[in-house]
Amino acid sequence: MENKLKIHNTLSRKKELFEPINSPYIGMYVCGPTVYGDAHLGHARPAITFDLIFRYLTHLGYKVRYVRNITDVGHLEADADEGEDKIAKKARLENLEPMEVVQYFSDRYHKNMDQLNVKNPSIEPRASGHIIEQIEMVKKILEAGYAYESNGSVYFDVKKYNKKNNYGILSGRKIEDMIANTRELEGQSEKKNPYDFALWKKAQPEHIMRWPSPWSDGFPGWHMECSAMSTKYLGEHFDIHGGGLDLLFPHHESEIAQSVAANKMQPVKYWLHNNMITLNGQKMGKSLGNAVSLDEFFTGKNDLLEQAYSPITIRFFILQAHYRSTIDFSNEALQSAEKGLKKLFTAIKSLDKLIASEKSTSNIKALREKCYDAMNDDFNSPILIANLFEGVRIINSIKDKKETISAEDLEILKKLFNDFVFDILGLKTEETTGKQNELVDGLLSTILSIRQEAKSNKDYATADIIRNELGKLNIQIKDTKEGASWEIGD
Amino acid sequence: MENKLKIHNTLSRKKELFEPINSPYIGMYVCGPTVYGDAHLGHARPAITFDLIFRYLTHLGYKVRYVRNITDVGHLEADADEGEDKIAKKARLENLEPMEVVQYFSDRYHKNMDQLNVKNPSIEPRASGHIIEQIEMVKKILEAGYAYESNGSVYFDVKKYNKKNNYGILSGRKIEDMIANTRELEGQSEKKNPYDFALWKKAQPEHIMRWPSPWSDGFPGWHMECSAMSTKYLGEHFDIHGGGLDLLFPHHESEIAQSVAANKMQPVKYWLHNNMITLNGQKMGKSLGNAVSLDEFFTGKNDLLEQAYSPITIRFFILQAHYRSTIDFSNEALQSAEKGLKKLFTAIKSLDKLIASEKSTSNIKALREKCYDAMNDDFNSPILIANLFEGVRIINSIKDKKETISAEDLEILKKLFNDFVFDILGLKTEETTGKQNELVDGLLSTILSIRQEAKSNKDYATADIIRNELGKLNIQIKDTKEGASWEIGD
Repeated sequence: MENKLKIHNTLSRKKELFEPINSPYIGMYVCGPTVYGDAHLGHARPAITFDLIFRYLTHLGYKVRYVRNITDVGHLEADADEGEDKIAKKARLENLEPMEVVQYFSDRYHKNMDQLNVKNPSIEPRASGHIIEQIEMVKKILEAGYAYESNGSVYFDVKKYNKKNNYGILSGRKIEDMIANTRELEGQSEKKNPYDFALWKKAQPEHIMRWPSPWSDGFPGWHMECSAMSTKYLGEHFDIHGGGLDLLFPHHESEIAQSVAANKMQPVKYWLHNNMITLNGQKMGKSLGNAVSLDEFFTGKNDLLEQAYSPITIRFFILQAHYRSTIDFSNEALQSAEKGLKKLFTAIKSLDKLIASEKSTSNIKALREKCYDAMNDDFNSPILIANLFEGVRIINSIKDKKETISAEDLEILKKLFNDFVFDILGLKTEETTGKQNELVDGLLSTILSIRQEAKSNKDYATADIIRNELGKLNIQIKDTKEGASWEIGD
Repeated sequence: MENKLKIHNTLSRKKELFEPINSPYIGMYVCGPTVYGDAHLGHARPAITFDLIFRYLTHLGYKVRYVRNITDVGHLEADADEGEDKIAKKARLENLEPMEVVQYFSDRYHKNMDQLNVKNPSIEPRASGHIIEQIEMVKKILEAGYAYESNGSVYFDVKKYNKKNNYGILSGRKIEDMIANTRELEGQSEKKNPYDFALWKKAQPEHIMRWPSPWSDGFPGWHMECSAMSTKYLGEHFDIHGGGLDLLFPHHESEIAQSVAANKMQPVKYWLHNNMITLNGQKMGKSLGNAVSLDEFFTGKNDLLEQAYSPITIRFFILQAHYRSTIDFSNEALQSAEKGLKKLFTAIKSLDKLIASEKSTSNIKALREKCYDAMNDDFNSPILIANLFEGVRIINSIKDKKETISAEDLEILKKLFNDFVFDILGLKTEETTGKQNELVDGLLSTILSIRQEAKSNKDYATADIIRNELGKLNIQIKDTKEGASWEIGD
């Protein structure tokens, strides 16, 4: 495989040439959802971003083990070290066992991911399923002297760690600034310093999700699961760790500290972060009351939405921006994505019917090169899409007989669209396939042959009635020399 | 809710009146798949059986917490206490991390269950996610004196347990017979008696899936997971435990022994077992080389199959037998199920168009009573289906104006079919819905109005051409006084 891929590494704040630790194998860990509510646009973005990366690396020939976790315990409200577990709270409000909440929202998350054509990860571990691994890692951190027990809980000693290491290596933050920014919360007196974070929490009596440990019946701190599970499935040093920018601090910063303390090495070679989605320039979030769930997008049932948007429209909308840029949500932007997608698929249908000529008037090989260049430049999907639309222009020109293409180039162009549109961008047509489409095709052929017959008999009234009736069904008939063809609108 | 439900309890070998421990709440645990290969008919049967029971109990108004596990560790080859873990073996052969195997086949299992219209359970716990709970239960059994440690492994002391309890209470087996039937295998010298079973196994050096425990780095015995997870999510005494008859001994017998030893009480009030599927009278199984995967059924790609069978045909085929009877698989039986299903759905379409008269010529309320009686008699789905076909006969007679139905009875009949066919039996039409169907309807209306127009103009040639063309698409036109109607064949 060509080794031209450059990736922006949050750790170095630079684009670096991608050199896997043990090529062709790649280990990639991505922070998945905390499953206590319906997935919204903020969940779709990292899932689609790292799906694109998973697909592209696989396309290049790498063997990727992609681990995306499910957080089902230990994630407390406001991402803090005190307060109620997000899932336990939902379970209490709904009068359910916490694992019923986990099952319900995991199932819905998976359904949404399928709709968005996001591939399943190779392994999808759950925090609650790896308590032993987390306890073992806390023990190692304690042994290394970078944690302390306090009243049945265990905290990471940030100040001590920072003397020999850099707590801030990823985020660029300084301990001094953290002190100023840390709010004092109830129970923080257990900690030596306010910026220390929990590795293990003693459970309050009302806390349902609890396990025995050497320190107390309790549960792991939120950051522990990713360190323990990435180590278990990808090793102490692996290639890629991804997640949303909102997880950079304190979550990912703390993951690094935990792994360095326990395993004496940087856990991750390349850190990748997708940017946020805003709504009219404002952060979108559940607590802000402006989060639109994916199901609401797919059905249009939310006052912020002017219409329903299909899952692939949402996917295309997200891929139209580079993953490190913010995306501002608006109905206009989504409608424009919808139109773009339609234009793309109309061209792909035409592509199948193009007829080769002796020569090409466009440089198809150069176009292919540009598509790879875009993806090799830190997975730049908007530039890739712009190049594909240059391909759309070429296809339409050939169709309209303004340009020509050689047989060899036509094959290249077909493979190019197949590889990049379907395999790498993961787009797909949303018409139902198979039996039903055959039926529609069959019925339309029948109707058009009746119309042709009418026209032959100079019965233009019938021919026009048929055209009008089909128009009502949003089907356009085009009369050409070769006969009538049709196109189904939305 | 009416309390007329009788359930055959394997424990008492009798049909008993169903009296939930804490009505309206019901706890139900069912043994799910060991995920190291594609799901076959043998997986479909318990899933569909307990889905029927889950649906019916919910229909009656009970609040059911349905737990169905995934076995991802500890299930050794030949269901023995020695040998290789089924999943680890597959992982070794495929050069994968065991959890990649688990993820891959779990995802495929879930897809198959969706296709079969099997509802997701409330909680789907994994054995590897509950190692601590299993270790804690082994500790309790050791404390109670019913287990012993041997060379880093822990075994259940069946002989000692049997002095005060009955190891055989579920299966009816006697210890003396077990001795005669137990094959001596390598490593059994660790056990006091050959019929003792492993609660915890010390891992051999090459064994990948291992966790620390007080006895050794190892893994739980196969029977432990269900005892530990059912206790965790349903309590020490719960209503229903289900599974295939092949799991009755030693798996379920051992579950009872473990729970009685640890918790000092019978864990389950009602034990339910579905019978097996045979092929020409022979057991069907992976090791027998005659297991047909569900995907093969759905695509027809297996030499044993004459054609593809849709997921709902498979579901209907299984429901046509009572869950405690064996089902013998054959192409004829499946083809007959396919025909029956079609007849049922054709009648349901007619039902929507029936027009009420003053009086009913059939006793619809008695029919409803018979449907409930069937299900209340140990979930007798074949009798239920026979009654629904009596309903089909009535519908067709009314449609053909040989019988009549009152407005009140028509509503009852519609609700009856809706409740039993869709909600309880979980059947569904397999035509794609929504947009595409609208399009087909629209096109057909267009074609039929053209044909009507032609007939009005005495242009019978065109009318016949249209009929023939539609015939080729397997669409039948019926001319009635009210105009033409159509029916799409398969």
